[in-house]
Order: sequence, then structure tokens, then C-alpha cells
Amino acid sequence: MPRYALLIEYDGAPFHGWQRQSTLPSVQGTIEQALARLEPDLPSIATAGRTDAGVHALGQVATVDMARDWDPFRLSEALNHHVRPAPVSILRAVRVAGDFHARFSAIERRYLFRLLQRRAPPALEREKVWQVRQRLDLQAMRDGARHLLGRHDFTTFRSSICQADSPVRTLDRLEVTALARPDGTEFRFDVRARSFLHNQVRSFVGTLERVGAGAWSPEDVRTALEARDRAACGPVSPPGGLYLAGVGYPQDPFA
Amino acid sequence: MPRYALLIEYDGAPFHGWQRQSTLPSVQGTIEQALARLEPDLPSIATAGRTDAGVHALGQVATVDMARDWDPFRLSEALNHHVRPAPVSILRAVRVAGDFHARFSAIERRYLFRLLQRRAPPALEREKVWQVRQRLDLQAMRDGARHLLGRHDFTTFRSSICQADSPVRTLDRLEVTALARPDGTEFRFDVRARSFLHNQVRSFVGTLERVGAGAWSPEDVRTALEARDRAACGPVSPPGGLYLAGVGYPQDPFA
Repeated sequence: MPRYALLIEYDGAPFHGWQRQSTLPSVQGTIEQALARLEPDLPSIATAGRTDAGVHALGQVATVDMARDWDPFRLSEALNHHVRPAPVSILRAVRVAGDFHARFSAIERRYLFRLLQRRAPPALEREKVWQVRQRLDLQAMRDGARHLLGRHDFTTFRSSICQADSPVRTLDRLEVTALARPDGTEFRFDVRARSFLHNQVRSFVGTLERVGAGAWSPEDVRTALEARDRAACGPVSPPGGLYLAGVGYPQDPFA
Repeated sequence: MPRYALLIEYDGAPFHGWQRQSTLPSVQGTIEQALARLEPDLPSIATAGRTDAGVHALGQVATVDMARDWDPFRLSEALNHHVRPAPVSILRAVRVAGDFHARFSAIERRYLFRLLQRRAPPALEREKVWQVRQRLDLQAMRDGARHLLGRHDFTTFRSSICQADSPVRTLDRLEVTALARPDGTEFRFDVRARSFLHNQVRSFVGTLERVGAGAWSPEDVRTALEARDRAACGPVSPPGGLYLAGVGYPQDPFA
């Protein structure tokens, strides 16, 4: 059976996350229903990251085995036709080798978190940014973020329902940048690791927001990390600002 | 009665335009209902530009006379509370003189149109950009736009239901810029005039897109303009890419 990799963009707001659920709308369920319109036996689909409810994707990757030999371009066009009107878009489809797997072949996950500091609630970017009203100190957030880089036991920044075997992960990047906007300041968090624990990025951002607001010192982040205790974490940020930006593989199948 | 100017952002997608309609959702109706929660006699509201269904605003301006003397900050906060969950946000409220009128005092309207040239339909910017699949020639669109600048009879670029007394307007700016994006190219149209005819900006953009695609030459835009005939216009672009970006006054009330 020919295997295809799909590069997928979606608006997470109307979905109860990536993973298929019996009755609730999910991204996976939406794509599988579109696939079922193309081939009678519902192909199984594997993904690089099962995003939570409300979390978006700019570059999610999934692999699927089809019964027929589809032209990749026609496959993406057909899927985009059948997923409508759901806010899911197949950016690319490519043929990949049978041993390529969206999840197990991945060596990096890249997340973007968008925090908008302004007074009025966002009307045009509702559920696309986390709006925070108080001014935030960029340098303090950067200083706090530095303590999280590298290999650590991230129990503090891990959801209590996380199913990973180990709380140890290696954080390769956590960069905070500020964009001046006419209506305020947008802070962007660029976060990269081979893999993440459940709620890890949102736990990082919620904690660093406390540092930016001055409620925590940058050193408090290290103290929280070293506590290896979920109760030491700052508030978890809401999901609407989070985007799965991309997935890295030893060889980029879409290059 | 103290008069207030409101600076308003909204997502036009769920609304049947700015103007109040008896049963259909409108931006004006949404704000007036919020005002009615603050004062028993529904205050009347005037606006700088009555945007069409699906058209957004980054900086719409409205004026309203209140019975009570409201602190401007508290007025904006109270309105933002009461408009929820509609995607309307009061960015600022200020006290203005009794002779300031959102519409009649305005000397400039600024529109932004966002056109996204890429293959796959947009999932995250659905109804926020006009997606076009074919490659567009930036220089050709700029050359075509030049013919529209200045004072002209814009009958060609005016909706058949336009109620303006005269089709003559002075176009002060129509600049096209291109932003490279990982997923394609975003073309931004910055359009400014004292006032516009109905559907004028969308008629410009739809026509210039034909120029960018090579179906029209830049000179065809001048021919169409000189025809003074609605039938000579290119296709009218969809509303989702259009934003009322701002309104100019002799003295900026929000400065």
C-alpha cells in the first residue's frame, strides 16, 4: 500500500483536539471522514503530535496508507474538497517510503505560542492569541526561559494526566521575541524539542507570563523546575495561542 | 449629553454588515444592545463607514451621545463586557466635542485588503484573506493601480446599488505590497480616499487581481475606468479580505 505524508494546517478552535472521539468533532476524525470518501476501507492515520482542544497547527504532519496509487497533488486536492467546510487544509501531500512514520520518524517538534499584550479583548484574533492586559518584561521572560533549556526532569511542567513514561525531556529552544503592534505588543515563544510532555509548552508560557508580569523572578523558574512538583508550576496558559508550527525529520519529506 | 467617540475592531464574518437590521446580526445592533445595558434610552450611534457583510474593521469609528457622564475608560470596559461573545472590541473610548461626528467630521477612510496567493485553502485565515491560486505579478498590479489614482468618475468601480449622489471621488492612495510567507505570497492593498463608493475597494482589487494574473494588461484598467460603465469592471473580490483600517479626522480624537 503506498504511504503518503500530509502537511496539515488547522484552526483548533472548533475541535476537541486532534484525536478522534466518538461523537465530538476532532481534526483526525475530519480528515479520516474525508479519506473515507476516497477509499472504501477507512485508512488509518498516524500523526506527529496529538494537539489538545483549541490548539492550532501551521505544519502538522500525518502519514496514511492508501489502497490506490494516488497522485499526491490530486490526493491533497481531493482531501481539501472533502474536509470542507471544516477549517482544515492539506498544504502538501507527498509519497514516502513504507518505513516513514509521522510520529516515530520525527526528531523535532516546533511550537509557536502567541501572547498579545493589550487592553481590549481581541475581536479578529479571538482564540488565536492569549490576551494579557498587564505590561510584560521581555528580558525577565528571557532570563526565566534560560533555566528551562537542556535536559531536565520536567515533572513541574507536565499535566497530571500526561501518559509519557518519563518526565525527562531535552528542551532545545525557548526563545521569546516581542513585536510592536499599533494595538500593543505581541510576544512570540518559539519552543523546540525532540518531544514534549502533555501541556508542557502551555505550562512554560503560563509560568513565564508570571515572570514577565513581575509576580515571579526569573530565578523562581529554576526553583519551580527543581521542585519536580506539578504544584510548583505557574498557571497553564489557554490553548488558543498555541500552534504546532512544524515537525522535523532526518530528511524533510516535503523538501 | 456628553458625546463619546469609540474606536472599534470587529470580525465581520458573522455579521450582515455594520448597519442594524431588524432580525439579522449586525455590528451596529450588537453595540447598541450593549449600550442599552448601560442606559435605558437606547442612544443613537453614528459611524464613519457602514461596512458590508463579511468586511472587518481594525479601526472603525463611531460616535454616541450618552445620558450619563461616563468615565471613557469605564465606558469601553463596560461595552466590551456586554458585547461578549460577539467578535467586537472597543479599543478606545474618548470624550469629544458636541460638534464632532464620526461620519461628517471624517476626512479620510483607510482600507486594507489582504490577498493570499497560495495553493491550499486557508484554514487559520478563513474569511480573513482572499485566497487566489495563480501567481500574480506585483509590478503589473502596481502599474494598473496607478491609473486609478486622483479624481475620476468611478462609475465602473461602483456597485449598482450605490446610493452616493455622485460617482466622482478622489483616490489618494492605492499601494500594493507583497510579503513573502512560507506558504505563499500575501499581497496587501493600502487604499485611501476622503470617501468611497459602494464596493469600490473590492472592485479595484478584483480588477487588479486580473491584471496580476495576466488576464488584463495594466492599460486595460484605464480603459475600464474611462468606460464609466459597471460592465467594464473586473470581478468584485469577496469581502473577507477587506478591513476598514482607520478613519482620518482634522484632529485625531484618539491621539
